Amino acid sequence: MTMKEDKDISTTYLVERAKEMRTYNMIALRAAASGHTGGTLSIMDIAAVLYLKVLNHDPGNPGWDERDRVFWSVGHKAPALYVTLGMAGYFPVEDTVKLRQLWSGFEGHPNRFALPGIELSAGSLGQGLGVAVGSALRAKLDGKNYHVYCVMGDGEQQEGSIWEGVMSAAHYQLDNLIGIIDLNGLQIDGTTDEVMNVTPLEEKYRAFGWEVIHADGHDMEKLIEAFELAKKSEGKPVVILARTIKGKGVSFAEDVTGYHGIPPKDGRYGKESLDRAIQDIFGTDEHPFNSTVVDGLLDKAKEYYEEVSGKLQESMPVFSRDYWWNHGQGMKVEMDPTRMGFGRGLSQVAGDENTVAFGADITGSIKMDDFYNGQPERKKRFFSMGIAEQNMTTVAAGFALEGKTGFIGSYGVFVSGRNWDQIRTTLCYNNLNVKIAGAHGGISVGPDGATHQALEEIPLMYYLPKMQLLVPCDALETDRATRAIAEQEGPGYIRFGREATPLVTNTETPFEFGRANIIRFREEQRHFLDAFETYLSSDYMNEEEDICIVSCGPMVAESMRAAWILKLEFGFETRIINMHTIKPLDRACLVSAAEDIGRILTVEEQQVGGFGNIVAGAIATSSHLGTYVMEMMGIGDTFGESGSPWDLMKAFGLSAEHIAQKCKELLKK
Amino acid sequence: MTMKEDKDISTTYLVERAKEMRTYNMIALRAAASGHTGGTLSIMDIAAVLYLKVLNHDPGNPGWDERDRVFWSVGHKAPALYVTLGMAGYFPVEDTVKLRQLWSGFEGHPNRFALPGIELSAGSLGQGLGVAVGSALRAKLDGKNYHVYCVMGDGEQQEGSIWEGVMSAAHYQLDNLIGIIDLNGLQIDGTTDEVMNVTPLEEKYRAFGWEVIHADGHDMEKLIEAFELAKKSEGKPVVILARTIKGKGVSFAEDVTGYHGIPPKDGRYGKESLDRAIQDIFGTDEHPFNSTVVDGLLDKAKEYYEEVSGKLQESMPVFSRDYWWNHGQGMKVEMDPTRMGFGRGLSQVAGDENTVAFGADITGSIKMDDFYNGQPERKKRFFSMGIAEQNMTTVAAGFALEGKTGFIGSYGVFVSGRNWDQIRTTLCYNNLNVKIAGAHGGISVGPDGATHQALEEIPLMYYLPKMQLLVPCDALETDRATRAIAEQEGPGYIRFGREATPLVTNTETPFEFGRANIIRFREEQRHFLDAFETYLSSDYMNEEEDICIVSCGPMVAESMRAAWILKLEFGFETRIINMHTIKPLDRACLVSAAEDIGRILTVEEQQVGGFGNIVAGAIATSSHLGTYVMEMMGIGDTFGESGSPWDLMKAFGLSAEHIAQKCKELLKK
Repeated sequence: MTMKEDKDISTTYLVERAKEMRTYNMIALRAAASGHTGGTLSIMDIAAVLYLKVLNHDPGNPGWDERDRVFWSVGHKAPALYVTLGMAGYFPVEDTVKLRQLWSGFEGHPNRFALPGIELSAGSLGQGLGVAVGSALRAKLDGKNYHVYCVMGDGEQQEGSIWEGVMSAAHYQLDNLIGIIDLNGLQIDGTTDEVMNVTPLEEKYRAFGWEVIHADGHDMEKLIEAFELAKKSEGKPVVILARTIKGKGVSFAEDVTGYHGIPPKDGRYGKESLDRAIQDIFGTDEHPFNSTVVDGLLDKAKEYYEEVSGKLQESMPVFSRDYWWNHGQGMKVEMDPTRMGFGRGLSQVAGDENTVAFGADITGSIKMDDFYNGQPERKKRFFSMGIAEQNMTTVAAGFALEGKTGFIGSYGVFVSGRNWDQIRTTLCYNNLNVKIAGAHGGISVGPDGATHQALEEIPLMYYLPKMQLLVPCDALETDRATRAIAEQEGPGYIRFGREATPLVTNTETPFEFGRANIIRFREEQRHFLDAFETYLSSDYMNEEEDICIVSCGPMVAESMRAAWILKLEFGFETRIINMHTIKPLDRACLVSAAEDIGRILTVEEQQVGGFGNIVAGAIATSSHLGTYVMEMMGIGDTFGESGSPWDLMKAFGLSAEHIAQKCKELLKK
Repeated sequence: MTMKEDKDISTTYLVERAKEMRTYNMIALRAAASGHTGGTLSIMDIAAVLYLKVLNHDPGNPGWDERDRVFWSVGHKAPALYVTLGMAGYFPVEDTVKLRQLWSGFEGHPNRFALPGIELSAGSLGQGLGVAVGSALRAKLDGKNYHVYCVMGDGEQQEGSIWEGVMSAAHYQLDNLIGIIDLNGLQIDGTTDEVMNVTPLEEKYRAFGWEVIHADGHDMEKLIEAFELAKKSEGKPVVILARTIKGKGVSFAEDVTGYHGIPPKDGRYGKESLDRAIQDIFGTDEHPFNSTVVDGLLDKAKEYYEEVSGKLQESMPVFSRDYWWNHGQGMKVEMDPTRMGFGRGLSQVAGDENTVAFGADITGSIKMDDFYNGQPERKKRFFSMGIAEQNMTTVAAGFALEGKTGFIGSYGVFVSGRNWDQIRTTLCYNNLNVKIAGAHGGISVGPDGATHQALEEIPLMYYLPKMQLLVPCDALETDRATRAIAEQEGPGYIRFGREATPLVTNTETPFEFGRANIIRFREEQRHFLDAFETYLSSDYMNEEEDICIVSCGPMVAESMRAAWILKLEFGFETRIINMHTIKPLDRACLVSAAEDIGRILTVEEQQVGGFGNIVAGAIATSSHLGTYVMEMMGIGDTFGESGSPWDLMKAFGLSAEHIAQKCKELLKK
């Protein structure tokens, strides 16, 4: 299909296609068991009008230079983009059911290299408008007549980078640029008005030099009119403020805050919610998506998953037994996400009236809400800052100057990188008591994909003067680390994950800020934890082990499992260093390991070397060293992908099996 | 003086004090021979009214909890803050003449630990308002009655973080927060209207929920009225739009764009410009600052400088001769700032019609203007983006998506850190041809001080997938590196400095992207450069040297000078690795050095280890290594300071003398 043939397509046609798109969207989300229901449904009619009617594009020739460009600044609405591209003819729409699966291309957030029709890989909010400005400015420079569209969210208007883009578009009089804001009024933490009021957007955009058009975002006719009007602008960029309903078309999701990032799935609303959704969408139970069709699509997703799983399993190192977590009779372990530990630690720390905390529209998911959960009187010390990481950082600094201890947090990638300059100048140079919760760190954040998988926080934070950096290994240690960082003077960063990971410490395990733990496998036990002994590094006596694994975060548990494998399969003894505090670094224990053992492997759920090179430097600069060999494991200078957390650990070669295999190779040296 | 006694002070009093403040300001700038004339003069009357009349504060008790807070978001107007604090009684105003001198506390940008009365260490624009929001919100939380003032610039309104702060202040109804914008209409690259139009600010602030008051920023009466009115606001924050004249009071600086960052000094306007300035300020040559007074103050600065110089000299390692640059009869070297090389390389590259470049209000200083200098037809491919590093990055990405190669640049600290998330997601994940000029890197940026001295770019960029990173050693190599990075596919970062540094390569010196150079001292020559031989690492044959120095950027020249010292003083042979390309890293030459020599010293003008740990990791993970020892030199996990570039190299222990001494120690191991 090219739009040239379809200029006269009717609103009825669009309405019908939008129903199908919503349905494919819901099936894909259901198959993925994660993803964003609310926003994909609110944007769907806009997407249908844009791609099926308004755009001058050619799905058979996605790189056609005369095409109109659409930049989705809101990457998390990717499923809506995918079903729209499928419906427009870029690829079979049924393929979208592989949403968020490894190697499928249907990433949690769009990857332009994975699928045709995606103009921009995106996922960190507030960046697409600047790209659109660049594309529109290039059209002016080269005398091209295409239009540039930028799809934004209303919560996204809280990002300052949006206003930089808005200002620059007016400055360059980009009348070939059309912004569309999906005004559904809700974001993760609540209504946009409550989280960080962005209204009145009309006055704001006008004051910034734009034309403003209002439209009902679910009225095809009105949307077409709005786009036609917008294209006639002269000398000014135009924004269409499209009033929408989040979750539009699906009764149980409409205007429900909680349905931002929730798919229709068993356990919350039951399987019938998908049927109900489809019935809601069509307004009748007579529609093309009968149970055969739906089950066929879900099966397609399942088959794809099994294929991927098979490939992953084939790639795994093989040992005499299956050592995977809880696969055997003994060595049982409990799982708990490290973020839960952060929440528990924070809840403790928040007892101090001098603490304050801040939300960046991801409060519940990262457990920042444990600051006040069950303690409503604390809520007055909690401040919602919206999706504005930079401002959250400096506002917390303002409190810290007044003697408070502030906790800020978000996805690790955004709260270490979006606000890095604020962390450096305002937090570190001023040496302020602001503690940064770097949540959802590493590839184990899973199906959200590359843009949301923080893999660089350790080097980002480590080289900042005054910064203190903790990467605890499990939920309990995260609880302790949270309390420890609260006690330290000055800025601190604590990195933790989203997925449930093994509990490998208990209350008797030593924990001291700035001092590593040494962990030794002793013998198989009914409970995994009991099979190990843990020592403060300063208390540990050399046992002349065969190899040393230096690790942090959830990689500690994998390293412990690797030690078990190494002992049982090959009789090798492993010293594990749990470097929960990266800064200040326990250099002495690293140097001892090099001297005592001479074979060091670092394992990190980060870009390889971000942590490993710090370890290498600490060892190399110690004097009187004998010969030693070293290897590093981590993400190999590449971005992550969507997939289930544990599959990603396999795909990126970070499971205990991979660690054990690498150790075996190192032991040959 | 406490304000309690001075509530009835007259406008005449303020006018007189402002004259004295302007005079001290000009003397301090003259003594420092650098700093910001234009903006300090435009803000001075506002500062006088605020600190001498409006504020409820007690200079004898700077930490008094009931005091009004003033956050200077515009750190570069520090001299105005200093003379105002001096005049208000925080310290003797005459001390301000030590402006920008090492250890004086009168840093190029304010350091709250150095002087009483400074509420916030600042210098990176757009951060102070968020801090003010935090402070005002804390007052609401704790029931405090103080007012919070935030001093901003009009160019600063281009930073998106400002609008995050503005939005949040209205959201929390902070009627105890008063913003003041020094509307002088000029910024470094031109008028604010041309660089990135921020008008109409009244409509913008109103649309963002603020009250707006206009005032003549040079009329004491009107300013007092404006502040009184602002304090009466209920439920809304207030901004005072204070119309001012940049350079106000000094004829040769008034409304002159070029006087943004220029002090009154010989060579540009002659010594008489200071006399003229003072005469202009008082409107008569009958004023208290006769030549005896002025010379006395300048002498005070000179004496302080001599004292510091003496201490620095005492701290230097001593050898049998003076090996300092161009101090002897032979070994002469020419000096040229590496930024000049960037300009020359860029000018070459810009011949390609497919290149575009972007300005972030520091265009001339970082030589980005060589993109079009002498080639006016290229100017259509240059785009001014204002002080908005995030948007500059994404706009360049928009061009790169269309097949262009974009060059962006600013101070290294801002163009690597303020936009890090944009670099990661939009540039690297999208693998776009955007080349980042990280100018003014390292402590050698000198008197601007800590906030402007980029010391962390290497780890910030190195761990990003797809990023390519170059740190060339001199102006010629920077020229070549600029052309090399332009040719590579994907994002790149090139780090260079502001100060003139030795030319240690010529056109015959080999240069290959991704391959290091090996440099060997041979014998003393008339010209420094002729005393050395340089090889591509792949061509080099082991000479079994005593030690290897691995270095990059201007540290290469110091390492070469160290090699000269080591040979002449002790007979030691040094292999220098000039690692101009840090990513991709020439691992082989590092491993060879460890194997051949076994004694490695890394030297970086960065936080120590940011580069050194990468080297350590590359060596440690190579197999079959024998024993080796390693040391690292760099900035020791601390922020920089104001001072002359070469004094800072001494103060932070990064001169050739320090390197030679460290080598000597390492050779004992």
